[in-house]
Amino acid sequence: MIENKINKLKKLINKYNVDGYIIPKNDAYFAEFSSPDRLKIISDFSGSAGFAIILKKKNYLFVDGRYTLQSEIECGKYFKIIEIPKTLPKIILKKLDKKLVIGYDPQLFTSINLKKLFGNSCNLSAIDSNLVDKIYKEKPKKYVNSFYNLDANITGESVSNKVNRLIKKIKRDKIDNIFISAPENVAWLLNIRGRDNPFSPIPNCKIILTKNKKIYFFSCPKKIYNIKKINPYNKFQFCKYNSFTSIIKKLPGKSFCIDSSTCSVSNENIIKLIFNIKKHIDPCYMMKSIKNQIEIKNMINAHVEDGLALTKFIFWIKKINKNKLTELDAQNKLEKFRKLNSNYLFPSFNTIAGTASNGAIIHYRASKKSNKVIKKNDIFLCDSGGQYKYGTTDVTRTICFTKQKNSIKNIFTKVLKGHIAVADANLNKFYNGKKLDKKARQFLKKDGLDYSHGTGHGVGFFLNVHEGPQSISKFSNIKLQEGMVLSNEPGYYKKNKYGIRIENLVYIKKNNNYLKFENLTLAPIEKDLINFNLLNKKEKDYLFYYHLNIYAKHSKYLNKKEKAWLAELIQHF
Amino acid sequence: MIENKINKLKKLINKYNVDGYIIPKNDAYFAEFSSPDRLKIISDFSGSAGFAIILKKKNYLFVDGRYTLQSEIECGKYFKIIEIPKTLPKIILKKLDKKLVIGYDPQLFTSINLKKLFGNSCNLSAIDSNLVDKIYKEKPKKYVNSFYNLDANITGESVSNKVNRLIKKIKRDKIDNIFISAPENVAWLLNIRGRDNPFSPIPNCKIILTKNKKIYFFSCPKKIYNIKKINPYNKFQFCKYNSFTSIIKKLPGKSFCIDSSTCSVSNENIIKLIFNIKKHIDPCYMMKSIKNQIEIKNMINAHVEDGLALTKFIFWIKKINKNKLTELDAQNKLEKFRKLNSNYLFPSFNTIAGTASNGAIIHYRASKKSNKVIKKNDIFLCDSGGQYKYGTTDVTRTICFTKQKNSIKNIFTKVLKGHIAVADANLNKFYNGKKLDKKARQFLKKDGLDYSHGTGHGVGFFLNVHEGPQSISKFSNIKLQEGMVLSNEPGYYKKNKYGIRIENLVYIKKNNNYLKFENLTLAPIEKDLINFNLLNKKEKDYLFYYHLNIYAKHSKYLNKKEKAWLAELIQHF
Repeated sequence: MIENKINKLKKLINKYNVDGYIIPKNDAYFAEFSSPDRLKIISDFSGSAGFAIILKKKNYLFVDGRYTLQSEIECGKYFKIIEIPKTLPKIILKKLDKKLVIGYDPQLFTSINLKKLFGNSCNLSAIDSNLVDKIYKEKPKKYVNSFYNLDANITGESVSNKVNRLIKKIKRDKIDNIFISAPENVAWLLNIRGRDNPFSPIPNCKIILTKNKKIYFFSCPKKIYNIKKINPYNKFQFCKYNSFTSIIKKLPGKSFCIDSSTCSVSNENIIKLIFNIKKHIDPCYMMKSIKNQIEIKNMINAHVEDGLALTKFIFWIKKINKNKLTELDAQNKLEKFRKLNSNYLFPSFNTIAGTASNGAIIHYRASKKSNKVIKKNDIFLCDSGGQYKYGTTDVTRTICFTKQKNSIKNIFTKVLKGHIAVADANLNKFYNGKKLDKKARQFLKKDGLDYSHGTGHGVGFFLNVHEGPQSISKFSNIKLQEGMVLSNEPGYYKKNKYGIRIENLVYIKKNNNYLKFENLTLAPIEKDLINFNLLNKKEKDYLFYYHLNIYAKHSKYLNKKEKAWLAELIQHF
Repeated sequence: MIENKINKLKKLINKYNVDGYIIPKNDAYFAEFSSPDRLKIISDFSGSAGFAIILKKKNYLFVDGRYTLQSEIECGKYFKIIEIPKTLPKIILKKLDKKLVIGYDPQLFTSINLKKLFGNSCNLSAIDSNLVDKIYKEKPKKYVNSFYNLDANITGESVSNKVNRLIKKIKRDKIDNIFISAPENVAWLLNIRGRDNPFSPIPNCKIILTKNKKIYFFSCPKKIYNIKKINPYNKFQFCKYNSFTSIIKKLPGKSFCIDSSTCSVSNENIIKLIFNIKKHIDPCYMMKSIKNQIEIKNMINAHVEDGLALTKFIFWIKKINKNKLTELDAQNKLEKFRKLNSNYLFPSFNTIAGTASNGAIIHYRASKKSNKVIKKNDIFLCDSGGQYKYGTTDVTRTICFTKQKNSIKNIFTKVLKGHIAVADANLNKFYNGKKLDKKARQFLKKDGLDYSHGTGHGVGFFLNVHEGPQSISKFSNIKLQEGMVLSNEPGYYKKNKYGIRIENLVYIKKNNNYLKFENLTLAPIEKDLINFNLLNKKEKDYLFYYHLNIYAKHSKYLNKKEKAWLAELIQHF
């Protein structure tokens, strides 16, 4: 099947008179999850990042360290696997032949991406039709998922207000037009959502906003029925993608702002023919990262609902279930608990349900192949999240089923102390991710331990579960501000043994000019993995109040046994 | 003023050719609270029980032990105060003259009452018009408080269903007609309420129900507008009181059931002219004492709302208020907290707010005269309750403001242990009030201490706060059944020093055939009066779970400080 597709592609490479063709993971919207996933179509590789280069006589798959093993299994037969950033295509291609001409789809690349991957080491040739699409088309979906408007009681700010704020910003920079190429930003700005992404209510579309507040809305015309009907902002003009050039030609002014991280080469090339391009980070990123009061209220509600599912799941898996259970069984059961809530829509990312050694694989995804039975002595890590009608959740709990060794409990407790240190931090003092990240690792560090991922990422409001610019990591200098939502997820991973991670979402609240995190996530933390001797009074109090709040929020919806279990937990802290 | 009225009355006594006239406390509906209060009109005596006999040359006021002192102050100048049951009128009157003829209003007495008070020691003469009304009429109210129907989602059972159940019972006893003379029973049976009583939504009315389900409804015709409009039961006939005789004459059958505790001499005399009277306790008493699921659900909701007011009040008086506060101030503040809730209507009885020595007066009522400042070292007893749109509450908390002596804490703790013993009792074993009452007193008893009131009374559903037949007392043999609501209120009173009482309302719940109390009341118990060394693990757990539940129910509506205080409490238990 793969061989067949590759051969067809090679014929097209010949036909288009190039020496090779590059297939990226991303789609034309540069989203976290691609649809279609052309890389998977051509290679069977299912990881979340990577790209392939098909030459006439050789096929390369470039993946990062997480996926070298997995890709070897999935498509090692047809591809030479190359680890990036260790080795970049420019190095490979340079070795082969300086005169190679590599074809690419200019809608799937930004100019920065091309530069980073190829430098000046080969000749690139834009091919307007996508060659993978020519050999394989996903079946058209039976139903078109139309875009839809969100009510003001969901978004908390009108479109015109947001547009006005944005216009003010671009005018200050003497910008006449702005191209908003990231659909997540369009979704935020226009208070719309769609269903073009498996884990996010992203509407696939792009807009041009002129300084006169005119909006050119580019999308599949089939999807705009609903938002056309109750157009909340009367300066919309709905356009097809193929009218991009003609629209650009009639726009006023001289300067055009694009965001180089999501503006495709295709779009950039058209704009730069007529306008002075100013490359700026789209201001919507920062604007949407600061949630308003209504968004926060909705996020709180979504987390109350999500926390209830989690709480019931944890009780069930620890205390009720007596059957053999695999990771996939557990994952499905959790999904069932979430689905009891009519406001729940779908997962916000692929659940990571890894027991024992699988838990140590940071981006693990249980498959039929990898699926393990969760054993009584195991440590089970479960990282999952949901999209609710008014919020996005992401939570990790690590649980056990029998008494665990002190050595493991000590590590869990140190992860927990880091988690609490972040949750309780004074954000006037620890005002960026860099400073906070240290706090999270401090207790592990004393024992020479660490984890190889950031401590927290930004989270969207009923949008992407990973959202910038804010984060808690060694490199983040973004100032933490009131209204931002982040994850707080320190962990520890013992290769081939177990994984530990404790993740809550938090939002930033201002109290008398003091910035503090407030927990959004409301799910019990594994008491049986805590060595209470390592906790000080403040940390114990934190756990007491945290679980008391969980009880207050959930008890109405818990049965007698669930309530008793939770109450006992509180009594313990 | 009083003298004037008494003189006018004496003139009427002469006119009606009797030697004296008896004025009871009760009105024609024999309710706990009378309206009009003719005894107060003629004597200024404001206690809750008693009666006066005005002779041509002497005025007697008969009161029980609670009121001898009070009545002496209020009207000792004009009345000779006699303590009952120590001395009954029949003894006094016998001494005076066997041939005395005492006038009375036959609508205000049951035949039993007359017998109990006078035996055969004097001649009684029924006078159809009330002599007190002749000399003094309360101003007619500006607005007529119409009766109103309660929705099915409040009452949980339709009128026709209740009537059918009642008819079944009377038919079994071969009864053709029943006179329901207690308005509280009419209110329950017909799902109506009114506003004829200061502390209860009682509709002043009486009915005759025939075995053919015909209902003759006697009341003030001005009040029936609403219930006539949406007559839930189409066999009503609305009648004036003065048509009682003519209605009786046309009723079918031979037998007539009356309840001797509320059937007036007047009504009894008319009925017995035509029918065979069967004296039975009105079956409605027992029927209404067993609340259905909807009534219980509504009572729970009313108590959540009431408990919130109590919790906020207790926090306020203990932690916030810095001003000098009298008992009346405290009482008014509590009322203000209750009034924040739009479902709150009015108090369910006169609040007892007694600090220090006033707390030792079991039926204390703060007045301008008695009103004390609550001092920092005092023990403050507060017994209050509310009528909500769907429930009746009654709660006592005893609180302190500074560290108290161990001797006092020990007594409070023993009262608390009794309270918990009742709340936690297995009602399959302790199946009546008599058995339970012992449990409540056991810990005090070990120290030779006791309290001179019952441990609990029945409570109505959005009706009278005191309701039979169930109770927890030395004499109660009534079997406790699922759905009954009672108070659980052991106490201790140190004369001239302080009073202690801890009162919750509870309802009886069946779980797998086990009958248990469930607390309705949700207000914190004074931790600062507990000697924790006297509590066993089970009692501590009880307090932990009780307060955890309070937190769960109220925290959403508490401010940060209130929440922190309550959480600290829980951590303490």
